Amino acid sequence: MLALPKAVVIDRMVETELAVVTNLDPKRHEAPSTPAPSTPSPPPPSTPLDALADLVADDLLAVNELIVQRMHSSVEMIPRLASYIVSAGGKRLRPLLTLASARLCRYAGDRHLGLAASVEFIHTATLLHDDVVDESNLRRGLASANAVFGNKASVLVGDFLFSRAFLLMVETGSLEVLRILSHASAVIAEGEVLQLQTTNDTNTTEESYLEVIRAKTAALFAAACRVSAVVADRPAVEATALDDYGLNLGIAFQLVDDVLDYSALQARLGKTVGDDFREGKITLPVVLAFRRGSDEERVFWRRVLEDTEQTDGDLDHAIRLMIRHHALRDTMDRARHYGALAREALGLFDDSPEKRVLLEIIDFVIEREY
Amino acid sequence: MLALPKAVVIDRMVETELAVVTNLDPKRHEAPSTPAPSTPSPPPPSTPLDALADLVADDLLAVNELIVQRMHSSVEMIPRLASYIVSAGGKRLRPLLTLASARLCRYAGDRHLGLAASVEFIHTATLLHDDVVDESNLRRGLASANAVFGNKASVLVGDFLFSRAFLLMVETGSLEVLRILSHASAVIAEGEVLQLQTTNDTNTTEESYLEVIRAKTAALFAAACRVSAVVADRPAVEATALDDYGLNLGIAFQLVDDVLDYSALQARLGKTVGDDFREGKITLPVVLAFRRGSDEERVFWRRVLEDTEQTDGDLDHAIRLMIRHHALRDTMDRARHYGALAREALGLFDDSPEKRVLLEIIDFVIEREY
Repeated sequence: MLALPKAVVIDRMVETELAVVTNLDPKRHEAPSTPAPSTPSPPPPSTPLDALADLVADDLLAVNELIVQRMHSSVEMIPRLASYIVSAGGKRLRPLLTLASARLCRYAGDRHLGLAASVEFIHTATLLHDDVVDESNLRRGLASANAVFGNKASVLVGDFLFSRAFLLMVETGSLEVLRILSHASAVIAEGEVLQLQTTNDTNTTEESYLEVIRAKTAALFAAACRVSAVVADRPAVEATALDDYGLNLGIAFQLVDDVLDYSALQARLGKTVGDDFREGKITLPVVLAFRRGSDEERVFWRRVLEDTEQTDGDLDHAIRLMIRHHALRDTMDRARHYGALAREALGLFDDSPEKRVLLEIIDFVIEREY
Repeated sequence: MLALPKAVVIDRMVETELAVVTNLDPKRHEAPSTPAPSTPSPPPPSTPLDALADLVADDLLAVNELIVQRMHSSVEMIPRLASYIVSAGGKRLRPLLTLASARLCRYAGDRHLGLAASVEFIHTATLLHDDVVDESNLRRGLASANAVFGNKASVLVGDFLFSRAFLLMVETGSLEVLRILSHASAVIAEGEVLQLQTTNDTNTTEESYLEVIRAKTAALFAAACRVSAVVADRPAVEATALDDYGLNLGIAFQLVDDVLDYSALQARLGKTVGDDFREGKITLPVVLAFRRGSDEERVFWRRVLEDTEQTDGDLDHAIRLMIRHHALRDTMDRARHYGALAREALGLFDDSPEKRVLLEIIDFVIEREY
């Protein structure tokens, strides 16, 4: 048998582990033993996200126009930086949820367009500030805005987009929408600070971790869905159902993101694998591997994540430990659990194309490889 | 005659120049030739700001309670950092303007309290982000929040306070208030980015400089005053008058701030003199000295502010050039001009204790030494 490079061995271990978890064929994207010549990659297969974008195509076009229009400023650097990040290959997942929720609620007006743009602005502002806080140089496979324009401009343009998000909400004329989204924004900031506090702390519990991702990620998913029921003037029970859907989908989304940070093929993820590891972020795969590990393993985890004293083979070793303790598999199981709660939340809505695609989005979020 | 240390000579030059400008006695706070033994300083004399705080004492107490209450979070670092900056000796000038404007408008409700707290939160959020952007280590004579808690926490707690500001506004139930303050917030961010673009650019014109300070400083003063007329349901002409008052007062305030950065006695200003100089910020004293300077002087300005190649005597030399070209005196003259416009704007209000103190605030902002 040929001796494979260590990285390939690790890749295969991860893929086998993930295959068990996600029922994927472990050979499907096995690393070739010699690098293939660089050829343009075929167009990616159609996903439920594409199906959703098709379903609300006209609205999405209007939202994209609104986004371009409202990021305008006479201060030339603002639209330049803002469009750099807004158009840098984002999935527009959150505004798509707002648009689909509005259709699910049979909303006939146009206030959901401003809301969808507003949600994307809040998301973009948090990305800009996150990258400054995390000192990231890559975002979706491209140089991050702070790497190109500097930290200072990223902080300030984040503030600008945040303010413009509120101006967009004011135009909807709904104080309830403003309450929901300003509350969500405060919760996001709380989640980010909590994450800062748990960084490098290997004693972080699963409960604390869930509190972080509920706040930093899921709160905006929940608000993005709920506000559509509010402008559509639907009963409170439907607003709550959409909130539950978004919240649980958001938790699942972040759990999968945290697994992918230890397992995705870099090119597909569009970000550097091992970012969380290098930053000493304590995500669920770490929490589980640490809790289930030997004393000796815990010494390793403390060195690499608390003291962030890392050498070349440490990431590979961390992944090996996660596989040994089924930390990635069980994190995926948790994601599936929250996915089921999201599915459950939509139960009170009648069948419709929007409902079907919102359900498919759950599977997509869990099974995605990037 | 005794040879005085160079710094004292410069101090005297600046004070004489400022005395011409502000009609202060140049000897009033002359530096002693030998350092005096450290004794507790006497309580500062009562200022129009104190008079204003007395006039609205009950409201101010309620606002301070609201501020403490609304900066609360279960994420312990947030109230710790927020209270560090909110209570760090701020003058509460902006919320005081909101409270005084509400009384001037004979407003009888309590929505001005939330607005005043909201205005202070927006101001605090921008201070937190400013100090990160400017890499400042001092704020009002104390270590800045970013120096104590780190840049990351400062960015995120700024976002938190900003979101909480909007939640407070939502409680007033006025969409018009939300529109005014979210617009002002976007304009502040635009001003900060514009300032970033003009930093180190000695070709910055007086017009560009005015555009920066109108946006980064005066827009919030204007909004802080205008919103009170809105909740008091006063005619548009009064809202506009209060906006004009705040805008012109804010411009005067910033012009004086920029003079003080080259002339204040460090202990009184509560911040390091020469901050703007070291950061290569182009303020009006620089614009005027550069424009009026010789070719040789411009070489100096370009070296110290564009290339920020600075050595020990450079700040002293810069101050000497500003004095030679009356740059500080004429910046003070501009401040007086905007002060007169602020005074003019209050013309349509009847005489009242509130009006009198708002007029006195103009003189205070211009004549202050810190």
